[in-house]
Amino acid sequence: MQAVDVSADALAVPDLDAIRSAQVRIAAHVHRTPVLRCRSLDAEVGAELYFKAENVQRTGAFKARGASNAVFSLSSDEARRGVVTHSSGNHGAALAYAAQRRGIPAFVVMPENAARVKQDNVRRRNGTIRFCAANVEAREAACAAVRRETGATLIHPFDDPRVIAGQGTAVLELLEESPGLDAVVAPVGGGGLLSGTAIAVKSIDRSVRVYGAEPVNADDAARGFRSGKVEPLPAATTIADGLRTTLSPRTLGAIRAHVDAIGTASEEAIVRAMRMVWERMKIVIEPSAAVPLACLLEKTVDARGMRVGIILSGGNVDLDRLPWQA
Amino acid sequence: MQAVDVSADALAVPDLDAIRSAQVRIAAHVHRTPVLRCRSLDAEVGAELYFKAENVQRTGAFKARGASNAVFSLSSDEARRGVVTHSSGNHGAALAYAAQRRGIPAFVVMPENAARVKQDNVRRRNGTIRFCAANVEAREAACAAVRRETGATLIHPFDDPRVIAGQGTAVLELLEESPGLDAVVAPVGGGGLLSGTAIAVKSIDRSVRVYGAEPVNADDAARGFRSGKVEPLPAATTIADGLRTTLSPRTLGAIRAHVDAIGTASEEAIVRAMRMVWERMKIVIEPSAAVPLACLLEKTVDARGMRVGIILSGGNVDLDRLPWQA
Repeated sequence: MQAVDVSADALAVPDLDAIRSAQVRIAAHVHRTPVLRCRSLDAEVGAELYFKAENVQRTGAFKARGASNAVFSLSSDEARRGVVTHSSGNHGAALAYAAQRRGIPAFVVMPENAARVKQDNVRRRNGTIRFCAANVEAREAACAAVRRETGATLIHPFDDPRVIAGQGTAVLELLEESPGLDAVVAPVGGGGLLSGTAIAVKSIDRSVRVYGAEPVNADDAARGFRSGKVEPLPAATTIADGLRTTLSPRTLGAIRAHVDAIGTASEEAIVRAMRMVWERMKIVIEPSAAVPLACLLEKTVDARGMRVGIILSGGNVDLDRLPWQA
Repeated sequence: MQAVDVSADALAVPDLDAIRSAQVRIAAHVHRTPVLRCRSLDAEVGAELYFKAENVQRTGAFKARGASNAVFSLSSDEARRGVVTHSSGNHGAALAYAAQRRGIPAFVVMPENAARVKQDNVRRRNGTIRFCAANVEAREAACAAVRRETGATLIHPFDDPRVIAGQGTAVLELLEESPGLDAVVAPVGGGGLLSGTAIAVKSIDRSVRVYGAEPVNADDAARGFRSGKVEPLPAATTIADGLRTTLSPRTLGAIRAHVDAIGTASEEAIVRAMRMVWERMKIVIEPSAAVPLACLLEKTVDARGMRVGIILSGGNVDLDRLPWQA
């Protein structure tokens, strides 16, 4: 059990200015992704849907935004010593990408049994992998060791104002491209994307609703939103592997301050929503990216009759094992 | 054995004016699809690739263009009696779509054992299915019967100048959006898309090369291109199910007159190219749409160093059975 740090620094979040600065800082390193429409999905939901396609973002996920903002925010002294993280998923690949763009070392700590494709995603971008045993203590010890040896800066996947500011840039583009939205829905795992999204949206127009979308099998954010505490997530069995993470005090605070509600989706609805997007929009999205649409289909986020922006968070999926193939 | 009709009418093809007229005629009924780029595929091929994403076209394939042009070219007298075809694939669905847009009946003849999804694609658009035995004679007899009963106009999937003109509109958009292309590659099955593409491109700029791309397992167009005759295709075993068709004298003539070369791709390369597009571009394309990239990878179409337009012909694929899953 770790003590929870609730100092001002541990709760600091970026404001709209910081998100706008991030947008400028990362502009050369990320795509301005398209906003897609699909009439037949509009008809399913009974709303006008505007999909921000971060599945075609560099590295295949919005994570390139936060990682790039963090890496390019470092002083040249800090940068020279590199960056380190223990996320082996989309953030790990994104951090390696951003470090490669800046020409600095990236260290990614991952368990010895990490999937081949995750290892490749880091190595392909010249990242260095440090293996550790598959538990939290080993992971944190390995991170600490890298920092001692190299002086690298830890870039947390979501509990970092620079990362949150970067993630918030996606919705800035969405609002510019699709004026007049009534609501925005983003998936929530650790809460970096949802925090950045909510801060940006509410700072621009308080009347636009912001919803989180979460698997019912990993509903710590929905519980924490009600209780005001970081809620534990004993065994997240969801297929939405990007969302098997609990909030931090920082992201919980931002979400309680700026988000209107959090909907939850069943595993069945997530798979159905993912398949609908593949079939009707002809795009590849990962399970986590399907959770907002799944919430709309199950009406745990009710946006009927509205103009709704949806962050399609990523498109990294194992094409050998699709979730609708038992 | 049928006699081959080589009368002037059977060889007539549209000119650039007809393709431009088609563009105006169908504008309200088809999407102007995006042109996509992918640096990592550029690097694989050693060329700048411009992908015209007809996988996100209405009905999921470029076929909506030709079918719409044919249906909206009919006089109101003809239209009232409806349209009929014996293609149960993308053209059948596209014809039902176009007929629905004009508010007229569409009859689609298909074998009794046609896949459920093909039946649904027609019925969903209010098309009427006429089942027949699974052979050419039964199919043609069923078409003839529909025409006798209803007076419906036969809209052939490719051997029709109106259809060819419609298919040629995709490359008009591609050339507008991506000026300075050195070459364009389109898949070739019956040859409607390739004919329309080649006529449009060469009429606008003779210096732009036009290549056909075909599975080596269904290489009748490559053989016919050399021999000058419609070559038989005994048993097309290719995974690219949209390309298991022979040319007609009309499309062969247009292709020999306007196409620079036809490349062929192995089944292995088609599957590899399809998967690369899914993984790196995060879009869903069908096997036929992957054949141009497969030819570039196998260098049977050599476009290294060029700016190359590629028609991604469609995105209708059975998500329960992907070709890389043995």
